[in-house]
Amino acid sequence: MTEAKGSFTNLSELGEFGLIEHISKQFKTANKSSLTGIGDDAAVIDAMGKKTIVSSDMLVEGVHFDLSFHPLKHLGYKAVVVNLSDIYAMNAHPSQILVNIALSNRFSLEAIDELYSGMKLACKIYGVDLIGGDTTSSNSGLVISITAIGHADEQNIVYRSGAKENDLLCVSGDLGAAYLGLQVLEREKKIFLEHPGIQPDLSGNEYIIERQLKPEARKEIIEKLTEKGVKPSAMIDISDGLSSEIIHICRASGTGCDIYEDKIPIDPQAINRAEEFRLDPTVCALSGGEDYELLFTIRQADYEKLREEVDISIIGHIKEESSGINMISRGGSLVKLTAQGWDALLNK
Amino acid sequence: MTEAKGSFTNLSELGEFGLIEHISKQFKTANKSSLTGIGDDAAVIDAMGKKTIVSSDMLVEGVHFDLSFHPLKHLGYKAVVVNLSDIYAMNAHPSQILVNIALSNRFSLEAIDELYSGMKLACKIYGVDLIGGDTTSSNSGLVISITAIGHADEQNIVYRSGAKENDLLCVSGDLGAAYLGLQVLEREKKIFLEHPGIQPDLSGNEYIIERQLKPEARKEIIEKLTEKGVKPSAMIDISDGLSSEIIHICRASGTGCDIYEDKIPIDPQAINRAEEFRLDPTVCALSGGEDYELLFTIRQADYEKLREEVDISIIGHIKEESSGINMISRGGSLVKLTAQGWDALLNK
Repeated sequence: MTEAKGSFTNLSELGEFGLIEHISKQFKTANKSSLTGIGDDAAVIDAMGKKTIVSSDMLVEGVHFDLSFHPLKHLGYKAVVVNLSDIYAMNAHPSQILVNIALSNRFSLEAIDELYSGMKLACKIYGVDLIGGDTTSSNSGLVISITAIGHADEQNIVYRSGAKENDLLCVSGDLGAAYLGLQVLEREKKIFLEHPGIQPDLSGNEYIIERQLKPEARKEIIEKLTEKGVKPSAMIDISDGLSSEIIHICRASGTGCDIYEDKIPIDPQAINRAEEFRLDPTVCALSGGEDYELLFTIRQADYEKLREEVDISIIGHIKEESSGINMISRGGSLVKLTAQGWDALLNK
Repeated sequence: MTEAKGSFTNLSELGEFGLIEHISKQFKTANKSSLTGIGDDAAVIDAMGKKTIVSSDMLVEGVHFDLSFHPLKHLGYKAVVVNLSDIYAMNAHPSQILVNIALSNRFSLEAIDELYSGMKLACKIYGVDLIGGDTTSSNSGLVISITAIGHADEQNIVYRSGAKENDLLCVSGDLGAAYLGLQVLEREKKIFLEHPGIQPDLSGNEYIIERQLKPEARKEIIEKLTEKGVKPSAMIDISDGLSSEIIHICRASGTGCDIYEDKIPIDPQAINRAEEFRLDPTVCALSGGEDYELLFTIRQADYEKLREEVDISIIGHIKEESSGINMISRGGSLVKLTAQGWDALLNK
């Protein structure tokens, strides 16, 4: 499914060095801090007086993506974005990435070009340089491992651990859509495999599918917070689901919290689809993951600065540790939040 | 082959967060530049006025290692070392690593502990902090992707591109042994599979097997060069084989070179084993790879400073580009060097 008809270049004709050269040509550095890029044992970065922020993530075929419905270009884009999201979640700005990929010889050069074209687009949109990495063989699936590097002034860095009692818990954008997009894609794949004549019908699901296949990192939220003069007290990106991210912040900060079910932002398309799949939209938001929105806490004094931001929802507040980590349901009952993420989604 | 008898902890009992917590506890940071380690979206590093050097490598089961003869502890050690080697090859000192691993549920917690204990040992010996990474599922084999970060003053960094005509081409240690160690391990594995009663006989091959299973990065060569006041004009580590590394330096520097076959350092154990396998020891040194020695060029004026170093061999000199990249054989004939590495070893 990853290749259209036509003539393709076998990777073994090109060899490792040919492939590296082919990829290098497409990535010129633009950031002043990228002193050297691809082409030596290591790349050289100038922190220019700032602290260096670094994060690394791995995407595995069959675990994190399914190439039968994930176009390679989108996959390359997503692989970069999910790494940048971790840097933004520190209130820092990404400037470089290193990309390691392992791939089997079922991939043609054209397929690799598709993958890298998505990475290139993400680099361009987010202003990031690809400065190195490793390209190697694999006996089976595609594995993408990316390290993102960013910089920030020390006093601007936001950790998970800074939340304090009475802080407001905020979330950007909306939640649960990426998970529901995946449910639609998996359903249509199943129908297609059983009835190859039927074309997948994705109409009416465009938003949630895009949230799954081509998520964005919330750069503009970081910029907005800076512009408004708000430094969050704690922040994390929502990769595993709201519930486990809230627990991360509360544990790291030594606090509890209350969130309100009716304040969790969920897109109408996601709500409709959840109902169709007989899923609770709130559970999708709490445990679905892959939304790559930002979850952060702010001092109550900063509330006025953000109250008119439509893309930021206040969903609850931080309490003392002993009160636990809870959601007040629509019906008014108190539900303990539990960590999900990997455990729930991969072992289901 | 990766587990002894006994009782093992299934990874699914622990879950992702449990596993991360389990690993984090074993890695405390020691370097001043490691401001934060595992436990947030990203780690924070202080470049402390220096340039940051960063490199990333991937090791894939079945391609780069065979767990039937590669003990997990050694593998963890090697995975770290091959990345540090890239940082030393820039004449820089590694200070942090990020480790991404993908593993299937055939690995127990005890197996993962073995892997990380090797990483921990390498971190301790080389003075490096493990500050982050990602742990994820895989449907089949083990994939390890490591990013190494180091620091150096700008004027000390050595690139591949600085070699000049008449510079001397030097190599540390000896070459070809890691490749021959692999040949012995593969032979013994084959015998064992065909005749399970016969115990592998590795005696007399200890050195070459250790070179394959537990290589070292040449930190002390970098320290020696600094101590002697020698800054190489170009440098690279020998991961793919002497031949392709020489070509990398010559191409990046826009030069040619002559090396002398009889100057290539090869250990007697490697020579004996090569003869037994009817392999040419020189070809093993040129194309075997995985020696992780350093190949570097120095100005002729620095020759006296290094002439008594037994662990450094001068194997040739840099010439003008038009003269090509050649080896003068023992018999006195001129042989053009060709790039090998991945192409030769993985597609054979």
